[in-house]
Amino acid sequence: MCARILSAGTALPGEPIGTADLAECFGMNALWQQWVDSFIGTRSRYLAVDLRTGRQNYTLADLGELAATEALGGARLSAEDVDAIVMATATPDELMPATVNVIADRLGIDGIPTFQLQSGCSGAVQAFDVASALLGGDRYRTVLVIGGDVIARHYDVTADLNKVQPSELVNFVLFGDGAGAAVLSSEPGGGPEVRAVRTELTGLGREPGQVLRWFGLVDRAEASAPAREDYKAIEEHVPRMAKEMVDELLEDLGWARDEVDYLLPPQLSVVMTQKIVELLDCPAAREVSVVADIGNNGNPLLFFQLKSLLDEMTGNAKAIAVAIESSKWIKSGLALESA
Amino acid sequence: MCARILSAGTALPGEPIGTADLAECFGMNALWQQWVDSFIGTRSRYLAVDLRTGRQNYTLADLGELAATEALGGARLSAEDVDAIVMATATPDELMPATVNVIADRLGIDGIPTFQLQSGCSGAVQAFDVASALLGGDRYRTVLVIGGDVIARHYDVTADLNKVQPSELVNFVLFGDGAGAAVLSSEPGGGPEVRAVRTELTGLGREPGQVLRWFGLVDRAEASAPAREDYKAIEEHVPRMAKEMVDELLEDLGWARDEVDYLLPPQLSVVMTQKIVELLDCPAAREVSVVADIGNNGNPLLFFQLKSLLDEMTGNAKAIAVAIESSKWIKSGLALESA
Repeated sequence: MCARILSAGTALPGEPIGTADLAECFGMNALWQQWVDSFIGTRSRYLAVDLRTGRQNYTLADLGELAATEALGGARLSAEDVDAIVMATATPDELMPATVNVIADRLGIDGIPTFQLQSGCSGAVQAFDVASALLGGDRYRTVLVIGGDVIARHYDVTADLNKVQPSELVNFVLFGDGAGAAVLSSEPGGGPEVRAVRTELTGLGREPGQVLRWFGLVDRAEASAPAREDYKAIEEHVPRMAKEMVDELLEDLGWARDEVDYLLPPQLSVVMTQKIVELLDCPAAREVSVVADIGNNGNPLLFFQLKSLLDEMTGNAKAIAVAIESSKWIKSGLALESA
Repeated sequence: MCARILSAGTALPGEPIGTADLAECFGMNALWQQWVDSFIGTRSRYLAVDLRTGRQNYTLADLGELAATEALGGARLSAEDVDAIVMATATPDELMPATVNVIADRLGIDGIPTFQLQSGCSGAVQAFDVASALLGGDRYRTVLVIGGDVIARHYDVTADLNKVQPSELVNFVLFGDGAGAAVLSSEPGGGPEVRAVRTELTGLGREPGQVLRWFGLVDRAEASAPAREDYKAIEEHVPRMAKEMVDELLEDLGWARDEVDYLLPPQLSVVMTQKIVELLDCPAAREVSVVADIGNNGNPLLFFQLKSLLDEMTGNAKAIAVAIESSKWIKSGLALESA
């Protein structure tokens, strides 16, 4: 590994949407709000859709541009300094062109390799993995990493939440939209070093815990739901996989469990994150979580955690981030160390 | 660079569909067939949709699995030998899980990093770029690269071709479905060496020449077409960009123009490819083209060309492959050398 994180930037669409706002939009009662509070715990989320009109008011490119601009500014770099871009998203604005190229265009970046990974919760770590590999050679010094998701195209503000299945109901409160970015450098200097990146498919013979569809011209009239989750499987597997990933990283690096100063755990929901943190058992680690305020916005989550981490990580300190993708089950993790 | 190509595999859905078959399906006359012959030149293509029923009969995962199985067999490797997978597609089966993970599952591959790049015509070269970066470190020895596209979900067999715009009409005859795969190794041994990979965004301030949409739950009733091409811009820019990429690769490697033994040109259509080959002006190079028989199937094209190349490339020989993505304009190229 030879990559350091110089900066992180984030972007959210519009104003925070509290659970009471959602209740008002969908005509749900106080009991439902209590259910959200106790079973999910997420207080607010940000959506790229206007709840009153149903119109999408931010694209992924809009949010990605904002986050990338902040990250470049934080690293005091400009468009010409970027040698490659690696972006991760589950929800590109179009199938073609890749959204990363629309963002590059808006930033004034050209003539360099750009990559867009199709991925969910583990996408940000996958993007760090590819960026680290690029920085390991001698062709690149500065790589811009972006993660973003916008579920607006599947978010139906006219849905009758009293009629949808509980497993589908959860989607309206659990998820959010946003984007994040970070600047990675192979040059010596400040910023925590990426000591290890691991992404591992763990899906053999296992049904996907999450499926997100796109509709084509021919099949778009089909009645099937665009998203399907198996929350029982997610509750069963995600904590265990998170534990395995922390153990693997600690073993890789020869770090003791109580040497971890900061823990960036998976951000499925407040309630799930609490359970996972207990299981991970890093007694000296300060938890860096963001899900209560921004919801589970997929690929951006890690960047929000990183931005918070970079603000407070000083002196010699060790941090571990873990993300688990339930779609076809990917374990992913990142170990950082500041000097 | 330290990657060698051990093998290539390919897969096509069903039987070849001749231009006469399309004419029969869509009720077009002999004059239309002559127009296809003279302006496009593609004789046949393969589609993952049944022309009579409109049903999709192959998924991207189906075709990718077949191509990857052939590539692994050609390299005499099994699932356990694969250290990472890099796939490229513009048309994933779902937004989540990434199709690469479904293919991995079917091949019995698990516990390794998998990456799926969202990209069009330059996707295969982008996948080679990421694979080469991975093989440049010490974590990976064998990387499986896959490229595939299935446009079935946007292919409307009930369309009235007498009423669609000429620019849209072209899409029904130009494109095809398929998948390809290759095994790359960092170990010394046989197979041509990847001497250079270049992928460069060239989109600054330029409108996309090709847009491919996906529909969501909310916007799926919109009347807009899923695909939009600017063929004037494509005809203007693609040949020039292809020439620039060949020149860049030759300069990078210090190769003379007449040292190129094999040329794998962009495969937009037979007519476009002929024009580009003339412009590229590699007098001693044997052209390796596949578009006349399989149509422009996007990400798989390079693998079909490579499979043909590997069959005949012996002794010391140099090959250059070029692909241009018109979506947001990406120049990409690959230089290979056998010992």
